[in-house]
Amino acid sequence: MNMFNEALLMNAQRHAQRAPGCGTPQPGAPCLGHVTLVGAGPGDADLLTVKAVRALQSASLVLVDQLVSPEVLSLLPPEAERIDVGKKASHHTLPQDQIIELMLHHARSGRALLRLKGGDGYIFGRGGEEAQALAEAGIPFSVIPGLSAAQGAAASVGIPLTHRDHAGTLIFTTGHLRESRQLDLDWATLARPRQTVVIYMGVGTLPLICAQLIAHGLAARTPAAVVENATRTNERCITGSVAELPGLAVAHNVQAPALIVIGEVVSLRAVLAQTQAPRQG
Amino acid sequence: MNMFNEALLMNAQRHAQRAPGCGTPQPGAPCLGHVTLVGAGPGDADLLTVKAVRALQSASLVLVDQLVSPEVLSLLPPEAERIDVGKKASHHTLPQDQIIELMLHHARSGRALLRLKGGDGYIFGRGGEEAQALAEAGIPFSVIPGLSAAQGAAASVGIPLTHRDHAGTLIFTTGHLRESRQLDLDWATLARPRQTVVIYMGVGTLPLICAQLIAHGLAARTPAAVVENATRTNERCITGSVAELPGLAVAHNVQAPALIVIGEVVSLRAVLAQTQAPRQG
Repeated sequence: MNMFNEALLMNAQRHAQRAPGCGTPQPGAPCLGHVTLVGAGPGDADLLTVKAVRALQSASLVLVDQLVSPEVLSLLPPEAERIDVGKKASHHTLPQDQIIELMLHHARSGRALLRLKGGDGYIFGRGGEEAQALAEAGIPFSVIPGLSAAQGAAASVGIPLTHRDHAGTLIFTTGHLRESRQLDLDWATLARPRQTVVIYMGVGTLPLICAQLIAHGLAARTPAAVVENATRTNERCITGSVAELPGLAVAHNVQAPALIVIGEVVSLRAVLAQTQAPRQG
Repeated sequence: MNMFNEALLMNAQRHAQRAPGCGTPQPGAPCLGHVTLVGAGPGDADLLTVKAVRALQSASLVLVDQLVSPEVLSLLPPEAERIDVGKKASHHTLPQDQIIELMLHHARSGRALLRLKGGDGYIFGRGGEEAQALAEAGIPFSVIPGLSAAQGAAASVGIPLTHRDHAGTLIFTTGHLRESRQLDLDWATLARPRQTVVIYMGVGTLPLICAQLIAHGLAARTPAAVVENATRTNERCITGSVAELPGLAVAHNVQAPALIVIGEVVSLRAVLAQTQAPRQG
């Protein structure tokens, strides 16, 4: 953190003590802004919470991640100022520390900021890091949870995440490579029976994931699915065994955003998808 | 399944082929109903999805679990017929197979039925079993996911469920005793470091859970929390080490519904709860 930021931080902390939020400013004290961390859910705007819709509709300044669907963004007022911090098309994603600096900068200038993230900000959304930075800077914030992609996918494609006959434990983890280019997952844990494993951001590493799970004892015939664009109009679900899934994903040209579901619960899709009504508007 | 039900099942299947839902009934064919499995979220009605609110507001017949909050139920039309299948006060809870029979009975009589469950029906909500029964009976249904209690609690009390510095894996499991009176959890998996473990329905078995985790290698000083009535106006959050938590829960007379969160992420609450705005209406 450079000198400029340190001074700003001290300033913010001093103001936080004197004027805790815009509601009750002290005479002469600059007013600190407020940040609302909002989980935008899996994509379908009808799967936003009521609280999130309300926050979106009254937003004036929004910091948006790339995984937020156009359908959700359409709820923002036309006059709202929107900053895209993860532009997928141009591969121009702002590093996390710069996103946080941007958030702090606007909040310190007294603005009410809406920080919009796909899914649930507290489940692989780095909402924890952002909340922590806000707290440490003394900036008031609130958190609105959102449905995680796995929940949207489960309901939409017909794969219950737990089931008395198949899975009493549910594990969420991520499949993206670390800076070391390693995929450092606890394979022995993930390969256990009678559980459901959901892997976010794992399309690129799917062959490695499936090979490691089988090497660590997971039955090669364990049912698995990859769900692309869960709950969106272009949603696709491809199922097969853990051994088959990497080949199927390549054959169907599956792209991110997609999540992987592994476990006996996937077998229920064959029954549930038959009578389940299609996605409703 | 008795003869009566078998006949009804065959009948339902025949009709499902001829008349797939009330939208397009064939002349002379009795119309099958439709079931909507709705996740009611953790309690705060503003944390319902838009889709769930719409389903609630247009409901005419509702089957309700005990964990659904009064605030959520107040959104039902006054004229809606409501069947409580889990009355907590009188300890009169309908067994799961009877809930399913009741659902099938009403759907077969052509009614549109809303099945309302606390949290997310596909995460420890037995929604999978109910969906399976509906599918096998050929009754059209749809599923609306809900925020799980852990998500509501995380946002509300200031405990991110994942965090780059503390937890890259998130595990959900349950702490209620099985019919054998055993708590048959995979302790070695749950005791691993660098993950967050959320245990639903574990207040009664909290001493056993904490003792087993420590016996299987989890550091006794690992931060832990119990969150009672997450997101509701009477929410309480009690934190301590895994070693201390059972004693604290007794001292504070913690009651169900409550969930347990174990992992380094709990330590963030001390920072986040300071500047986090209180629950908003």
